[in-house]
Amino acid sequence: MSELLDGLFGDPAVDAVFNSTATVATLLDVIAAIAGAEADVGRLPEAAAQAIRAAARADRIDFGALAAGAGASGNLAIPLVEQLTSVVAREHPDAAQYVHQSATSQDVLDTAAIVQVRAAGALVVARTERAAERAIALADRYRAVPIAGRTWLQQATPTSFGLKLAMTGDALGRCARRLEAAIARAAVVQLGGATGTLAAFGDHGLDVAASLGRALGLAVPSVPWHAHRDRLADVGAALGILAGTLGKVGRDVGLLAQTEVAEAHEGSPGGSSAMPQKRNPVRAAVAIAAAVRAPGLVATLLAALPQEHERGLGTWPAEWETLPALVRLVGGAARAVEELLTDLVVDPERMAANLDRSAGLIYAEAVTMALVPAIGKPRARELVRRACEETRATGRHLRDVLLADPVAAPLLIDRALGDLFDARQSLGLAGAMIDRVRSDHHA
Amino acid sequence: MSELLDGLFGDPAVDAVFNSTATVATLLDVIAAIAGAEADVGRLPEAAAQAIRAAARADRIDFGALAAGAGASGNLAIPLVEQLTSVVAREHPDAAQYVHQSATSQDVLDTAAIVQVRAAGALVVARTERAAERAIALADRYRAVPIAGRTWLQQATPTSFGLKLAMTGDALGRCARRLEAAIARAAVVQLGGATGTLAAFGDHGLDVAASLGRALGLAVPSVPWHAHRDRLADVGAALGILAGTLGKVGRDVGLLAQTEVAEAHEGSPGGSSAMPQKRNPVRAAVAIAAAVRAPGLVATLLAALPQEHERGLGTWPAEWETLPALVRLVGGAARAVEELLTDLVVDPERMAANLDRSAGLIYAEAVTMALVPAIGKPRARELVRRACEETRATGRHLRDVLLADPVAAPLLIDRALGDLFDARQSLGLAGAMIDRVRSDHHA
Amino acid sequence: MSELLDGLFGDPAVDAVFNSTATVATLLDVIAAIAGAEADVGRLPEAAAQAIRAAARADRIDFGALAAGAGASGNLAIPLVEQLTSVVAREHPDAAQYVHQSATSQDVLDTAAIVQVRAAGALVVARTERAAERAIALADRYRAVPIAGRTWLQQATPTSFGLKLAMTGDALGRCARRLEAAIARAAVVQLGGATGTLAAFGDHGLDVAASLGRALGLAVPSVPWHAHRDRLADVGAALGILAGTLGKVGRDVGLLAQTEVAEAHEGSPGGSSAMPQKRNPVRAAVAIAAAVRAPGLVATLLAALPQEHERGLGTWPAEWETLPALVRLVGGAARAVEELLTDLVVDPERMAANLDRSAGLIYAEAVTMALVPAIGKPRARELVRRACEETRATGRHLRDVLLADPVAAPLLIDRALGDLFDARQSLGLAGAMIDRVRSDHHA
Amino acid sequence: MSELLDGLFGDPAVDAVFNSTATVATLLDVIAAIAGAEADVGRLPEAAAQAIRAAARADRIDFGALAAGAGASGNLAIPLVEQLTSVVAREHPDAAQYVHQSATSQDVLDTAAIVQVRAAGALVVARTERAAERAIALADRYRAVPIAGRTWLQQATPTSFGLKLAMTGDALGRCARRLEAAIARAAVVQLGGATGTLAAFGDHGLDVAASLGRALGLAVPSVPWHAHRDRLADVGAALGILAGTLGKVGRDVGLLAQTEVAEAHEGSPGGSSAMPQKRNPVRAAVAIAAAVRAPGLVATLLAALPQEHERGLGTWPAEWETLPALVRLVGGAARAVEELLTDLVVDPERMAANLDRSAGLIYAEAVTMALVPAIGKPRARELVRRACEETRATGRHLRDVLLADPVAAPLLIDRALGDLFDARQSLGLAGAMIDRVRSDHHA
Repeated sequence: MSELLDGLFGDPAVDAVFNSTATVATLLDVIAAIAGAEADVGRLPEAAAQAIRAAARADRIDFGALAAGAGASGNLAIPLVEQLTSVVAREHPDAAQYVHQSATSQDVLDTAAIVQVRAAGALVVARTERAAERAIALADRYRAVPIAGRTWLQQATPTSFGLKLAMTGDALGRCARRLEAAIARAAVVQLGGATGTLAAFGDHGLDVAASLGRALGLAVPSVPWHAHRDRLADVGAALGILAGTLGKVGRDVGLLAQTEVAEAHEGSPGGSSAMPQKRNPVRAAVAIAAAVRAPGLVATLLAALPQEHERGLGTWPAEWETLPALVRLVGGAARAVEELLTDLVVDPERMAANLDRSAGLIYAEAVTMALVPAIGKPRARELVRRACEETRATGRHLRDVLLADPVAAPLLIDRALGDLFDARQSLGLAGAMIDRVRSDHHA
Repeated sequence: MSELLDGLFGDPAVDAVFNSTATVATLLDVIAAIAGAEADVGRLPEAAAQAIRAAARADRIDFGALAAGAGASGNLAIPLVEQLTSVVAREHPDAAQYVHQSATSQDVLDTAAIVQVRAAGALVVARTERAAERAIALADRYRAVPIAGRTWLQQATPTSFGLKLAMTGDALGRCARRLEAAIARAAVVQLGGATGTLAAFGDHGLDVAASLGRALGLAVPSVPWHAHRDRLADVGAALGILAGTLGKVGRDVGLLAQTEVAEAHEGSPGGSSAMPQKRNPVRAAVAIAAAVRAPGLVATLLAALPQEHERGLGTWPAEWETLPALVRLVGGAARAVEELLTDLVVDPERMAANLDRSAGLIYAEAVTMALVPAIGKPRARELVRRACEETRATGRHLRDVLLADPVAAPLLIDRALGDLFDARQSLGLAGAMIDRVRSDHHA
Repeated sequence: MSELLDGLFGDPAVDAVFNSTATVATLLDVIAAIAGAEADVGRLPEAAAQAIRAAARADRIDFGALAAGAGASGNLAIPLVEQLTSVVAREHPDAAQYVHQSATSQDVLDTAAIVQVRAAGALVVARTERAAERAIALADRYRAVPIAGRTWLQQATPTSFGLKLAMTGDALGRCARRLEAAIARAAVVQLGGATGTLAAFGDHGLDVAASLGRALGLAVPSVPWHAHRDRLADVGAALGILAGTLGKVGRDVGLLAQTEVAEAHEGSPGGSSAMPQKRNPVRAAVAIAAAVRAPGLVATLLAALPQEHERGLGTWPAEWETLPALVRLVGGAARAVEELLTDLVVDPERMAANLDRSAGLIYAEAVTMALVPAIGKPRARELVRRACEETRATGRHLRDVLLADPVAAPLLIDRALGDLFDARQSLGLAGAMIDRVRSDHHA
Repeated sequence: MSELLDGLFGDPAVDAVFNSTATVATLLDVIAAIAGAEADVGRLPEAAAQAIRAAARADRIDFGALAAGAGASGNLAIPLVEQLTSVVAREHPDAAQYVHQSATSQDVLDTAAIVQVRAAGALVVARTERAAERAIALADRYRAVPIAGRTWLQQATPTSFGLKLAMTGDALGRCARRLEAAIARAAVVQLGGATGTLAAFGDHGLDVAASLGRALGLAVPSVPWHAHRDRLADVGAALGILAGTLGKVGRDVGLLAQTEVAEAHEGSPGGSSAMPQKRNPVRAAVAIAAAVRAPGLVATLLAALPQEHERGLGTWPAEWETLPALVRLVGGAARAVEELLTDLVVDPERMAANLDRSAGLIYAEAVTMALVPAIGKPRARELVRRACEETRATGRHLRDVLLADPVAAPLLIDRALGDLFDARQSLGLAGAMIDRVRSDHHA
């Protein structure tokens, strides 16, 4: 079913890294690169390496036979090596014996996985970075726009819509850097041969690895990592954390877009098959869906970590579809959030109107703080708490209730008629913090 | 990447239920069935229903446009209804207005999901049932074959290989019935209209639902369930539990197939790209991989349950790919385990040889029990514990150590030379319990 | 940290089943019951069984030594049996050898886990059942109260608040029955001895199991289930599904309680350390928190299923704290939801006011349906879509826009001035469906 | 139940960070530190700050009332502030109004959580670092000791036990550094007031934050992070990855300790209540159990990330018990693995004997590589494959089968009688790689 939903959940560029052709092409590239690296150290003729590279093209491969072969043998590399060997044997018979000469299937599969994850991950990082930029730019634009801060989904105190966006941009930027760093740490060659000793490479194993690393732009780790997959799990975790952060953007936008709130909505909403008036926050939903799904995929990568001895039984294959699925899922969510932030429609008047909806209750903390110096915190809290109840019961504005209170009125009258009930005067250090985010982000 | 691995991880029959064509076909069937049900109650002309049914064929649909439309609108039903309406409009203009007349997208998508899950689930149930049958048949064959029972991966006491298989068959049978029951409970129509009131169906909503249920062989629930997805989660959980049980089979076979144990192995093992001698337990690995992956997918279904109001924001879409992925994954594992049990190669001699490897230590509990009546449990345990240490230190058989012990020797001599160190005499009630499983299973 | 939060997240009655004293008492009860069952079949003197039962009291046990012993030996049963044996040895020396004579640690631990889960689970079922009852009673009370149905968090069409509650009650009732059934299926004795053959019980193993089952009110399965834990996972899954359903109640109430929506709120909300006006939906939060946490715990139980051979290495211990944690978590959420539904404050006027907020847009589907017979669906949808846009742009009520439309006006005038824009006339079959839920629930 | 199992699953030092007293003490420390920071900027009298600090002792707090208060109010900070205020009011009435003057509950709870996680996390890092050291020291000792490399649980080629340990040490070291870095990144103050604007702190909010950061040794982030929890999730993920790596150690040791393999075992194994000979790998089991449980807890932290607006409804509380549970679980596993590596008993003779068990099959890849230069890879693979089958069928050593083969014999005779079937000559670059790990680790 999934390709039907790629348009909804995916990012075309990310998806393209993982489709069947790209996957086979990457595997072939790695096989060819290993042959090239062996040629570099003299373990096979340069002509053979060239012949292998020339044959290593996805359009030479019978994908149906490949899938069937994977079923029989247990992985994709075995039947792919067989097919490639046949192609080489037809065209350059002398070179055939050098195809996949000393490496093991896992060397090919793991290194190819790294190459794909790096390529797709870079796209996700870039998307996330653009989304962060966009959020920070919006933060600047809306720095002085008050909005009800909501805790436990209750109006709490005023805040600045810009600050809200700055926090989002700050978090997205951090997530982008975290993912980028995790990918960089994971960008290492896997080359160990059957069980990691490099014995089949004679004395040249580490030289082959170094040459392979140069060819693919990957570092060479101290030891092969076939059975220690923490670097991949680290990438998965960074994706999962990003998914959750994207999901928060989706959830907040979904809440702001509620008919009863209506403070912001997507510029290109979805519709309904039944209801002509609907403007569904589709991109918010995509981001939330990814945030709901990613934790299970990350958990799978973690659960697969205790891989038996030199190659896990079932634990290794458990990664094969999971990691690409996770990259694609989060890539789609990053795409959705970037789009969402690009055409977000914001309604500052509605934000102001909603701030007025509570008849002043949202200023209760500020009023309390204003009374504390004169009457102490316990009395202030109690006085304001009772005033809030009167406001709730009668609908009278909290300001008016307080101005009718013999204790509070003389203490508040100047400020109450001025800035105490003015959201624009209640934004604290929002502006300074937005600037901090902007400057940190651009540092 | 995943279709390349379908041959390894999947079951072709199950996968066929969820491919794009089948998915679109099922959605169209449901749309047509709703039209038919509306015709049954007179809400649209029978001829219109027939025209819709005639047009509702997957080969009329432009899948690329469908995927793009899903991206824009947020679900597959909206663009599919549009395309179908166009097809009908060309062929039977009068009928076009009746396409998807009163239902909402979710009615179509949810009901189609149920139809697919029921179809694919039945295949998984049947596979699992056959695997259970196979295990129970093997249990009978190997009922008297001793094998080392292993706890914490240490040899513990002898057991019967048949009993081990009977427990597997018992659990697989239970899992099959659990899944079957969960599917039966979930096999209910979703029809509610926009928010569940059936208002758009006039007074006929429940009649339409009843007729739709008859057409599709689904029950009609008391109320629509668009925002209460516990029945689907229940199916998912039953699949997850089955995955874990299949994974146990895989793990046990993988352990038995270890080079150092070699008591059983797959009849059609996989090979290696590097090592010609390898006989990899590929099906065991497939089952284990599914058991590693399924928990995360089940967790996703559970995490998606708190769906907001009358249709979740993002939480509902989180299910769309997850449930099919789970059914397919577990279907593939059931296929692998059925195959594995069908051609399992068993080596009773090796089981016997392994029982002898511990120089009698595996009989330590039995020896203790034999001594208890005469010298009490504390002394018996201590005596045997020390004897075990001597066996470990010297390599002398536990029987010989005990027969050299002045306390133990006279108490044990008759049995020690007879059945006490005979695994075939140590199988307890294995036979009776195998019969219980067989008879319960066939009841 | 957790006991500090038991007052928030827990249910005292459920928690009491799993505290240290209760856990030790249950383990001792099982050890004593096994001795009693062995006495029943003549494998030990009745007096010894009585002596063991008399000694098997939690206040005889040194809990610190028990915890230390569990660390050294790997489970609680080993040091507990040692301590109990010492107690018996002091009081009835002859009986000491019969303590835990033939069973293995897992028999004790698993059977005790079942006894605890059954006891606590019954409390959770009862809570859930009461919550379902409460929801259904509220459904009846609010059957004719219109509320905006919301999909994707957007107002969609009117529905009945009673119907919303009926769906909740229906789902909670189903969850209660599912959990009850899973517990009933899991309520089976575990008795197998070291590796499941019952060999240490001589010929009497199945008789001992039967007697033990009678004593504890548990069924006797065909075979021991030490390494096949699907029944426990089934209970866990039923708890996880319940958690998700409770979480939906919490999420919906949290959304309804938003300051901007204010259609319902908790009768006993929480406060804030900073904001005197806050009325936080604490119980909704408790239910949501459980729904966020339960999936990971269920996933753990599933991940632990592939237990090696006759006793898992680490996989079995992975359950020990997880299942009690899950029962307690869901028990607390059920408690919170029952409380929440008991004192829920509902504001039908506000529901009505919110229905009016969209200037008639919420009736767009109904208007479309009213136009379809005359002008066909495509024209009707397009006409209404444009009218909705005009309403959005101008703020004029959709009814007025339509009555100014030359096509729509003559077709709608009668109904538009009557019931078409009347939420109370838009509830479809809500009443009939509420009655179905009520009658199904009481059947 | 859990404290009974702390001796098994926990680490006493880590657990001590999270017990009730330590938790309350940390919360009080943070409240006092905020008061101190406010005094630093002149927002309250220094004497008041001192009075608050003097009163902020856990032994002044009624824990039962605290738990009850948390249930009513929704978090621990509210009732704790109330109790602390009462204590201060009794002793220094003037200071009472300054208790928790401007901060919000979340400021206290989040900052305290960071303080606890940093303290406990440092212990886990240190344990892991010691375990890595130990593994690398063992790697050096066993650098030349051959062991069967096993892939898919099948003997594959020889490797060095030292290399296996070096890979473990390398991974553990990386996990320690990853966790340390994540903790360092998360070691930031949370101070924002009700919704993050710092408005209640007047103009001094950022100065208070800076002073608080200095007092607690925490950095000050650009913006408060109450609703963006990615840093905590990052710590959780690093713990989860460590758990999986520890679990791999446990799984490998468990497999090596199998009766049939017996190449290594724990120096202080557990016993059995039934079987006197048992030496259960308890620490391996503890590590595996943590690896099974951690993924679900990490998934919970990820699932909780999309927190609504300025404070999540239920999503935030979902973290409160989860993160401490995760730290403790992984801390216990790190403790177990450090102990396990400290007293690991290794049997090189058994490793050698097991290498001989396959009658030379484990050398099949090496033999193939030796034949390739002369007869090409396809012929070499086929020849060796057939020879392996003959060995399997007849039990004759692969060397003898090959020396009887007219093609292979002349090509192999020199090496076959020398190093080709000598595991000690088959370790490839193991030594060099062990040195790389050691030198990298100490860099």
